[in-house]
Amino acid sequence: MALIVQKYGGTSVKDAERIFNVANRVVEYYDQGHSMVVVVSAQGDTTDELIEKAKEINEKPSNREMDVLLSTGEQISIALLAMAIEKLGYPVISLTGWQAGIHTYSKNTIARIKRIDTERIKRELDKKNIVIVAGFQGINKYDDITTLGSGGSDTTAVALAAALHADLCQIYTDVDGVYTADPRVVKNAYKLDEISYDEMLELATLGANVLHNRSVEMAKKYNVNLEVLSSLNRNKGTIVKEVVNVEKMLVRGVARDNDVARISLINIEDKPGKAFLVFSLMAKHNINVDITLQSIGREDKKDISFTVAEHNLEEALKALQENKDVIGFEDINYTKNVSKVSIVGAGMASNPGVAAMMFEALYDANINIHMISTSEIKISVLIDEKDADLAYNVVHDKFML
Amino acid sequence: MALIVQKYGGTSVKDAERIFNVANRVVEYYDQGHSMVVVVSAQGDTTDELIEKAKEINEKPSNREMDVLLSTGEQISIALLAMAIEKLGYPVISLTGWQAGIHTYSKNTIARIKRIDTERIKRELDKKNIVIVAGFQGINKYDDITTLGSGGSDTTAVALAAALHADLCQIYTDVDGVYTADPRVVKNAYKLDEISYDEMLELATLGANVLHNRSVEMAKKYNVNLEVLSSLNRNKGTIVKEVVNVEKMLVRGVARDNDVARISLINIEDKPGKAFLVFSLMAKHNINVDITLQSIGREDKKDISFTVAEHNLEEALKALQENKDVIGFEDINYTKNVSKVSIVGAGMASNPGVAAMMFEALYDANINIHMISTSEIKISVLIDEKDADLAYNVVHDKFML
Repeated sequence: MALIVQKYGGTSVKDAERIFNVANRVVEYYDQGHSMVVVVSAQGDTTDELIEKAKEINEKPSNREMDVLLSTGEQISIALLAMAIEKLGYPVISLTGWQAGIHTYSKNTIARIKRIDTERIKRELDKKNIVIVAGFQGINKYDDITTLGSGGSDTTAVALAAALHADLCQIYTDVDGVYTADPRVVKNAYKLDEISYDEMLELATLGANVLHNRSVEMAKKYNVNLEVLSSLNRNKGTIVKEVVNVEKMLVRGVARDNDVARISLINIEDKPGKAFLVFSLMAKHNINVDITLQSIGREDKKDISFTVAEHNLEEALKALQENKDVIGFEDINYTKNVSKVSIVGAGMASNPGVAAMMFEALYDANINIHMISTSEIKISVLIDEKDADLAYNVVHDKFML
Repeated sequence: MALIVQKYGGTSVKDAERIFNVANRVVEYYDQGHSMVVVVSAQGDTTDELIEKAKEINEKPSNREMDVLLSTGEQISIALLAMAIEKLGYPVISLTGWQAGIHTYSKNTIARIKRIDTERIKRELDKKNIVIVAGFQGINKYDDITTLGSGGSDTTAVALAAALHADLCQIYTDVDGVYTADPRVVKNAYKLDEISYDEMLELATLGANVLHNRSVEMAKKYNVNLEVLSSLNRNKGTIVKEVVNVEKMLVRGVARDNDVARISLINIEDKPGKAFLVFSLMAKHNINVDITLQSIGREDKKDISFTVAEHNLEEALKALQENKDVIGFEDINYTKNVSKVSIVGAGMASNPGVAAMMFEALYDANINIHMISTSEIKISVLIDEKDADLAYNVVHDKFML
C-alpha cells in the first residue's frame, strides 16, 4: 500500500486511445491498493498550437498572459484523463496547479516551485480518490498563474512526490528507461536498471532527453525514488536513486552532442583577468561555456578556445567582436563542425585508467581529439562532427559491453 | 469618467482579426478616461470542440470535470484579448473566474453566482489596468471550478456591473440591439432605442436570443443599466432599463416561436386536482408548460390542452401515457404543427384594446387562433405553423408601424 506519483507526458495522452491507456494503467495500480497521484502534461501539440495562436496576435506577449494561455493545455488533459477514469468506474478528481496548492516564485514562464500546500490532495486521497494534477503550472504570491518552463511537468511530479513523501515517483515517457547511449545511434546500447542522481544529471546535461535536469536535482535534494519507464509497454524502467553499485560498472552511460561549436580567440595578451573577461561576457548573454582550452603562451600572447551550444554561436561571436578592444585579441576563428562525446559514471573518480581507455578507443578508430574536459564523474572530448557517430559507438562498446 | 463593463460573445472574438476589433473598441473607451472591465466568452466553436473531445472519452462525464474542461475556453480568450491590448500598447491584465473573485453555488455546469469579491478587480482598476475577465465561470466553496450554463457570460458581465456599481454594462453581440421582431422574418422590424427589464424578460423567454433571461433578471434586481449593441458596427444599441416611456408605444416587440407542440388530454374526469396532477407530472420531468386551455366540462368530463416545447414532446407524451390511469383521461392527441406569436409591452396592461387589435390583425389575414394566453405585459396566441410567418408580420405591422 504505497503512495505513488506518476507523470505522463504529452505523447502519452495525445488522443482518446492513449488517454485510456494511461487510465487503465493508473487504475491497475489503484486496484493493488496504492494511493495514486497522477501528473499530466498538455496533449501532443497543444502547447505549440497555443503558442501559435498567441504569436498571431502578439509576437512578444507578456509572460504573464502567456502563462494564462499555456496553462489551459494541462487543464484540458486533467479533465479528459479524469473523465476516462470515471468511465472505467473509479473515483477520481482533477486539480489544476492552484487547486493542488502548487505555489511558485513570481517569475512567469520559468517559475520555480516554492512550496506545495498538500492539504487538498491529502483530503482527496483520504476520500480514496485518484488525484489527477496538472503539470507545469502553479500560482505565485499575486495569485497569478505561472508555468514552470521546460521539464515543468517532471518537476511538478518530483515536487509532489517530495511534498507528499511518496514511496515512488514514476516518470512515464516514450522510451522505457535510461539507456547507456542513444539506441537510435549506438546499436549496442542497452537499458540501465539503475543510475545515480549525479550520473543522471550529467547525462541529462549532456543531451539525454529522458529527464530534465531540474527534476533530477529536486529528486536528489529530497531523495525521491524515481523510476523512468514507458507508457507504451510493461517493461521495467530505470531506477534513479542516491547510491548505486559502482563496483559493477565504471561508466554508466555515453552521450553525444552535435549542438556544439568551437570558438578560438587568437593572440590574447597573456595577462591575468583576460579569461575572466571573456567568460563573464558570455554569462551576461546567458551563453553557457562548456569545454575550455587555454594554449600555453608563446612570448606574451596566448589563445583561448571554448565551446558553446551551436544555437548560441552567432550571438557569442557578435558579443566578442563588439568587445574586441576591451578583451584585446587579434582574431577569432570558429567552427560548427564539431561534436562532443562524453562518458558518465560515478565509478570513474577512483579509476584513473578510465580516460586512457576512452582515448584508446578513439585512437583505435583513428579519431582525432581536439579538446578534453573532465569532472568527477564525466569525461568529454571534442571531435570532428563527421566522426561523432563512430566515436559514440566505439566508446560505448569499449566500456559497456 | 465612468466605470463600464463590456461583454463580448464568442463570435466577437472568434479569430485574431475580431480580437483586435474588440481590443480597439476597448482602448477607445479607455482613452476617453473610462475604467474598463471586459468579459469575454470562449472563441467561436471552442466550447463545442471541447464537448466533442469529452464525448469521445465519456458519454456522461461528471459535471465537475466538464467544468474543468469547458472553463479553458474562456481562459484562452482572456489571454488572447489581453495580448492584443498589450500589442496596442495599453496596460491590461486578464483574470479567470476564480481570480476575479466570482464565487458561485456548488452545482456544476449550471452554477448561480453567490457573490463577487471585487478586491482584485478594484486593485487592478486602481492601477489603471484594463481588466479582462473570463465569462461563464467561477469557483464554488470547495474551490472547484464551476460554469454558469447558458447565457453565462452575459450573467458574469451583469453581476460584475452590479458588484462594481458600474455606470453601464454593454453587451456586444452580432446584432446591433433589440428589434421589434426578428428582422430576418419580419421585413418592417426595426431596432428599439430602449426597452424595460420586464419587456426584455418576456421577449427573451419568447425566443428573442439577444439576451439571456438570467442576465436580465439580475440587471433588474440590481438596477444595472444595460445596453445591447453590435461589436461589428458603431450603431447605437438598445438600452434596457427599469422604466421606459410607455406612452409612446403600447407594444415593444413581437416574438414568434416555432418550437411548440400542443397536447390535449381528452375526457378527463371533471374533478378538482386533475390539472394539478398533470402539471406536477410535467414539472417532475422538468418540462415547462406554457399556454393552457381547459374546456368547459360537458357532463362530468372535460378536456385539458396545453403547449410544451416541441423538443420536450416525446418525453411529455411518455410520462402522460405511463400515468394514464392515475390522471384518468381517455385519450391523448397532439400536434407539432403549431406556432406561438406573442406581443410584449408594458403599455398593454392599461390598454384593454390591445388584444382586440391583435386578433383583428390575425382575422384580417384569415389566420385561425387555437389558444390564447395573456399576462400583464404579454399576449400570446397559438396558431398553425404554416401561418406563423404571416402572423408574425401582420401583428408586427399592426402595432409597430
